[in-house]
Amino acid sequence: MSNTETKEESQVSQTSNNQPLLVVGTVAVDSVKTPFGEREQCFGGSASYFSYCSSFFTPVQLCAVVGDDFPEEYRNVLQERDINLNGLEVNKEGKTFRWEGKYEADLNSAITLDTHLNVLLDFDPKVQVNDSLEYLFLANFDPDLQLKVIEQVDKPKLKLTALDTMNFWIESKKESLLNVLKHVDMIVLNDGETRLLTGETNLIKGAKKIREFGPGIVVIKKGEHGVLLFFEDQYFALPAFPLEDVFDPTGAGDTFAGGMMGYLTKVGEVTADTLKQAIAYGTIMASFTVEKFSLDRLRELDQKQIQERFELFRKITNF
Amino acid sequence: MSNTETKEESQVSQTSNNQPLLVVGTVAVDSVKTPFGEREQCFGGSASYFSYCSSFFTPVQLCAVVGDDFPEEYRNVLQERDINLNGLEVNKEGKTFRWEGKYEADLNSAITLDTHLNVLLDFDPKVQVNDSLEYLFLANFDPDLQLKVIEQVDKPKLKLTALDTMNFWIESKKESLLNVLKHVDMIVLNDGETRLLTGETNLIKGAKKIREFGPGIVVIKKGEHGVLLFFEDQYFALPAFPLEDVFDPTGAGDTFAGGMMGYLTKVGEVTADTLKQAIAYGTIMASFTVEKFSLDRLRELDQKQIQERFELFRKITNF
Repeated sequence: MSNTETKEESQVSQTSNNQPLLVVGTVAVDSVKTPFGEREQCFGGSASYFSYCSSFFTPVQLCAVVGDDFPEEYRNVLQERDINLNGLEVNKEGKTFRWEGKYEADLNSAITLDTHLNVLLDFDPKVQVNDSLEYLFLANFDPDLQLKVIEQVDKPKLKLTALDTMNFWIESKKESLLNVLKHVDMIVLNDGETRLLTGETNLIKGAKKIREFGPGIVVIKKGEHGVLLFFEDQYFALPAFPLEDVFDPTGAGDTFAGGMMGYLTKVGEVTADTLKQAIAYGTIMASFTVEKFSLDRLRELDQKQIQERFELFRKITNF
Repeated sequence: MSNTETKEESQVSQTSNNQPLLVVGTVAVDSVKTPFGEREQCFGGSASYFSYCSSFFTPVQLCAVVGDDFPEEYRNVLQERDINLNGLEVNKEGKTFRWEGKYEADLNSAITLDTHLNVLLDFDPKVQVNDSLEYLFLANFDPDLQLKVIEQVDKPKLKLTALDTMNFWIESKKESLLNVLKHVDMIVLNDGETRLLTGETNLIKGAKKIREFGPGIVVIKKGEHGVLLFFEDQYFALPAFPLEDVFDPTGAGDTFAGGMMGYLTKVGEVTADTLKQAIAYGTIMASFTVEKFSLDRLRELDQKQIQERFELFRKITNF
């Protein structure tokens, strides 16, 4: 599904009511240092990466909060992809969420240097549910707020509710997280988070335990080592897309989820086969993201490049 | 290719001269401790694992040395699979090579507790080249001896010469290793060894550098994270076969190589497609090995189990 790129059409689309995918998460201003360079004050946030990426597959709406300092330039970036921003609240009393982090030679894990939650501290997400909403992604944030979003959405109408989380919530709000897990169909988390949440070293055992908590579909991201998917009595394993130059891993997990959810929304059904394809698309989208700072590489992307890399990925992994 | 299992036929086959695959390596007595148990004095060694495993695909001959203490029982294990043992030298002046090691919670890397090289110290491999020899595997040992083997083999007649190595040789005999690399078609090594040998953190860059040293085919094993293959201008990536219970990783790398080389020998040609299949078979064979101590799981194996797991592996990785 190709999105139009002119401003006029973008405006029209935003007032229409046909976005089947909703993401609730963060929009941020990041400062990032990697072994290959650094960037101050660049566009980031889980919902920004997710929505930009999923928009290559399906119309998408974003629910998040920013402060009075949020640059018009970043809003324009999201509008390039025709993302419905009606749910992007501007809190004039505060500043946009800021994250400062770095990566060392092992690009697999970010080291947080500084965090200013700012407007996130008072965020009380109000979801504007449109008629066509079928897929919901709760990007990484407070599990109590994730539950609040679920309560606002008419659950029986949804085809899939998925959730991301992180170490911080597993450690500080485990009960809340376990509670929200009862209400979702899918969880996306990394290998370390799986071990922390379940106490299991082995990821297959960990995934089984998580499925007992609620979500029938468990997606475990292993960074440069690929991804595992568990669904019903089946599982699926993919390596990462091999890259010679990983420049900045920020947003890789969010764009993995964006590609995966975007593809599932596009095809409109959740089966073993569509899930396999979905994590392959997620892998591809993440592989583009890490090639440049911020959303820079995604902004150069087109359908042809996505499809070409998807076919190459199939060629180098299928036997 | 199914091997006969009766002793009479085994004896006949050993005097025949139709083993297209030769492995030169170690035969050992191991003592292994894992988080799940320990085993004293069990059968091990790179050439033992390799030959037992590859014999499921092709007739194979083994060149190695043991001491006067080598248990008849272990010889019988190799004869179960009809392996040609004419090249298994018995040095009556010494004891068989012994390795003692352990694995901690992270099963990815062995910790060596004790090594007695014993008869390996005087090993001077004499290769008995038969008419049908086409594939040669130099398991992990002194690169000067690996070169000695290559010099005894009529190179133009070989379809593929492959080599394994380890950190110890990269650190202590790098010049010898670089010299032998000029004479082989393929190298099999792990991710840490790749980084040590090339100074490159990125494995694609590392593989490119190794290809400049000589071998056109580079196989990088990443343990539980799968394998990368580089061949001409192509590359290929596979995850490991996901296992719920890894019991003892000893021999995983050797049986990976055994499955890979055994399959290549069986199909008789080295192309991008056969190499892909070969590393998938290698992955499968390693996944069996780690399920029990020593060669125990391999000894319970049959063609049906191999083929079933291969098909399952395809199902859970291809999209």
